[in-house]
Amino acid sequence: MESKYTLGMIGLGTMGRNLLLNMADNGFAVTGYDKDAKMITKLREDGSKHNLEAFASLEDFVQSLELPRRIMLLVPAGPIVDSVIQELSPLLTKGDIIIDSGNSHFTDTSRRALELSDKGLHFFGMGISGGEEGARFGPSIMPGGDKTAYGEMKAILEAVSAKVNGDPCVTYIGPGASGHFVKMVHNGIEYAMMQLLAETYDILKNALDYSNEEIYSVFEEWNNGRLQSFLLEVTRDIFKVKDPKTGGFLLDYIKDEAKSKGTGKWTSQVSMDLQLPIPTINEAVTTRDLSKYKKLRVQLAEIYPEQKPTAENKAQFIIELEQALYFSVITSYAQGLHLLWQASATYEYDLNLHEIAKIWRGGCIIRAELLEDIYQAYSTQPELEHLYADAGIAAKMQEILPGMRSVVSHTVQTGLATPAYSSALAYFDSLRTARMPSNLIQAQRDFFGAHQFERTDEEGTFHAIWNPVLS
Amino acid sequence: MESKYTLGMIGLGTMGRNLLLNMADNGFAVTGYDKDAKMITKLREDGSKHNLEAFASLEDFVQSLELPRRIMLLVPAGPIVDSVIQELSPLLTKGDIIIDSGNSHFTDTSRRALELSDKGLHFFGMGISGGEEGARFGPSIMPGGDKTAYGEMKAILEAVSAKVNGDPCVTYIGPGASGHFVKMVHNGIEYAMMQLLAETYDILKNALDYSNEEIYSVFEEWNNGRLQSFLLEVTRDIFKVKDPKTGGFLLDYIKDEAKSKGTGKWTSQVSMDLQLPIPTINEAVTTRDLSKYKKLRVQLAEIYPEQKPTAENKAQFIIELEQALYFSVITSYAQGLHLLWQASATYEYDLNLHEIAKIWRGGCIIRAELLEDIYQAYSTQPELEHLYADAGIAAKMQEILPGMRSVVSHTVQTGLATPAYSSALAYFDSLRTARMPSNLIQAQRDFFGAHQFERTDEEGTFHAIWNPVLS
Repeated sequence: MESKYTLGMIGLGTMGRNLLLNMADNGFAVTGYDKDAKMITKLREDGSKHNLEAFASLEDFVQSLELPRRIMLLVPAGPIVDSVIQELSPLLTKGDIIIDSGNSHFTDTSRRALELSDKGLHFFGMGISGGEEGARFGPSIMPGGDKTAYGEMKAILEAVSAKVNGDPCVTYIGPGASGHFVKMVHNGIEYAMMQLLAETYDILKNALDYSNEEIYSVFEEWNNGRLQSFLLEVTRDIFKVKDPKTGGFLLDYIKDEAKSKGTGKWTSQVSMDLQLPIPTINEAVTTRDLSKYKKLRVQLAEIYPEQKPTAENKAQFIIELEQALYFSVITSYAQGLHLLWQASATYEYDLNLHEIAKIWRGGCIIRAELLEDIYQAYSTQPELEHLYADAGIAAKMQEILPGMRSVVSHTVQTGLATPAYSSALAYFDSLRTARMPSNLIQAQRDFFGAHQFERTDEEGTFHAIWNPVLS
Repeated sequence: MESKYTLGMIGLGTMGRNLLLNMADNGFAVTGYDKDAKMITKLREDGSKHNLEAFASLEDFVQSLELPRRIMLLVPAGPIVDSVIQELSPLLTKGDIIIDSGNSHFTDTSRRALELSDKGLHFFGMGISGGEEGARFGPSIMPGGDKTAYGEMKAILEAVSAKVNGDPCVTYIGPGASGHFVKMVHNGIEYAMMQLLAETYDILKNALDYSNEEIYSVFEEWNNGRLQSFLLEVTRDIFKVKDPKTGGFLLDYIKDEAKSKGTGKWTSQVSMDLQLPIPTINEAVTTRDLSKYKKLRVQLAEIYPEQKPTAENKAQFIIELEQALYFSVITSYAQGLHLLWQASATYEYDLNLHEIAKIWRGGCIIRAELLEDIYQAYSTQPELEHLYADAGIAAKMQEILPGMRSVVSHTVQTGLATPAYSSALAYFDSLRTARMPSNLIQAQRDFFGAHQFERTDEEGTFHAIWNPVLS
């Protein structure tokens, strides 16, 4: 058999198949493999007019690829990735490249890269965002691994990625597991955005008594302005979709118990290991979890009845709500980017936040008008630690801060739950506090645990006799 | 050598030494071992009037113990525990008991218990709370492991533990790593309490312009009421301590960067694995982390100047602040207990929350008047899922809710950072919401990721065509 294919895909589910069709559309000769014969048939059907092939034998699949082989995995994250690698790697040649494009935990990616590097194989952890449509017509792509080996993948990835002003939404992210790390944080920001939009829906519905049609119009109007984003578009459109079964709005018939697949949780857990605060992302993760306690919520709603918290000046409230959402969205991106800043130092990823903002502008789930501002901020200040410190962002924040305070104050007083909004404001107020009350925590720790403290006026660590009676 | 000692301690630092002296005070013949000769000398000096011994040889130490041996470790959590076990276990006899009394991660405890059970040895993970003073004069003790083996430890643990109304603050917690799990959650609640007290200090100082003397008086008064607790006592007393160096208050010279040792973080991370929301504990962990970004905070304080947020009616505000703190404290315990409720089911710990509340009433860092109410609540309703659902607690919550809303509304409007207070209120309001806006999140997930959703009116999972243009 002639080795004629540029890239091979293992895992021909929707994502893998769509990405392969995207590559074929762009003129690359590609091939696929799947244990499931149905998936092979499906690829052959969908790709009948393309320069692609699908194999039922892993050996034939491997032999069909030109050297160095580029083999991409789109299989479920977890042990399946390990078993595919185990089956695959004996068939490969030194210098071949395996690209895991699923949402693997970045620590698994680190481990796999080390194991395969011992065998002379390159392993890339690559984040792909954009959902099924993105995979088919242009996703945002975050590849991490060996920089030289990236040269072998660059052309095909740039061809299939989304484009913004002609620039491809893919860049070399960094060494090791940095690609999967950046994709994980992308998803963390996505969780925060989704939770903020859910709370906004709740406010529009309950504080303003808006119908689904009215909510559609609000989102439509906002999406024409600075809040423009893929997630706001999606959210807006949801408010138009009717339920074929009942004739009502489909949204009203969906259970209010949010599921999750883990990347948001990982982001929160890792941020705690890195001691880098991302409270709004944490609240997004936590509130999805809370929503699952439906029985308890119904029981507690009986004990603690809901108020009917209508805003008095609706026109004014809508203006403030747009400001509050913008404030919270900026804050969510700021937390995610700050986490990348810290991870870059801790894990020596040497991340280029300017490039990351650039490739998030198109193709991915968190693409948004705001990313253009973020891209500009990091372009002019590549060493920027925190988005809040950029002058352009600061000017916006100052302008919308009163609206943010007004909205959160309203929900707090009237009993509307806004965990993500509230945490965004508390985060902002903590971070702009030069002297926090955390000195008291250090005093408490030294008092009962002899954990020592540092002083403001002298170097070193100290222990005090806080209670002469006890000591 | 005669085998005459009832219990041996490995690790004679302050905690181990104090606990051993406590045992000797209670008439038990005990012995200690430490690699550090200075620690041995110190124990011999401190214990010169007691029936105790210290050995420099691990073999001699082991041989001095009666069968089945009870050997307690008070060494730093982590790899040191493993290396001690490795050195120790070949010297032991089937049926001997090793008790790890440090703050080990519960997953390490599970692993060690399994490994040692293969050798016929019992391994206990045991949480001890009360700091150095507690260890010396009566801590709260949370032992988990084999129930039958617990019989061999019961007498000595009950003797040395704190007592409340004559009842010892120790009980058999459950199998496996349940003891360390419960201690971890205890610490998570402790983190939340400390953060709430720090925010309260900030409010008293900045919203009421109170001096340290005035803050002392407020805490003194509150501690005479329903807020009475060890941590409030400690906090109160801190406001009296002068700095020998400057003559000012020591607290004012302590750096506002809070450190941590990991148990709070573990609690938050595990809660996310269990999908059980504990947002106030999360905020306590996160805000300690945030405090470390001092340089960034000082920089941002220049860009976003602090307001001077004085409350208008101080007398009224103080009444509301006490209510808000009580509301948030109840919420912190409620979150921790809910996490235990979930862990009990997931890990089959079969926890008795009534007994746990009982032993937390004395000796430990989170001992508080409130635990008497919690103990009562779980006594009458052993199956209670959530503290909010108890009628007695609910009556209190209803009474103090307006004060809570008023305080958080004030801090939100004036720019005082109250992440823990804010999260407690958002948690309460989420949990009493029968219909959350999380249906929108499910719609979004199905829209861009085909993740499916459930319906309110029909069993099963569904996928919709949300955007005919895209599909």
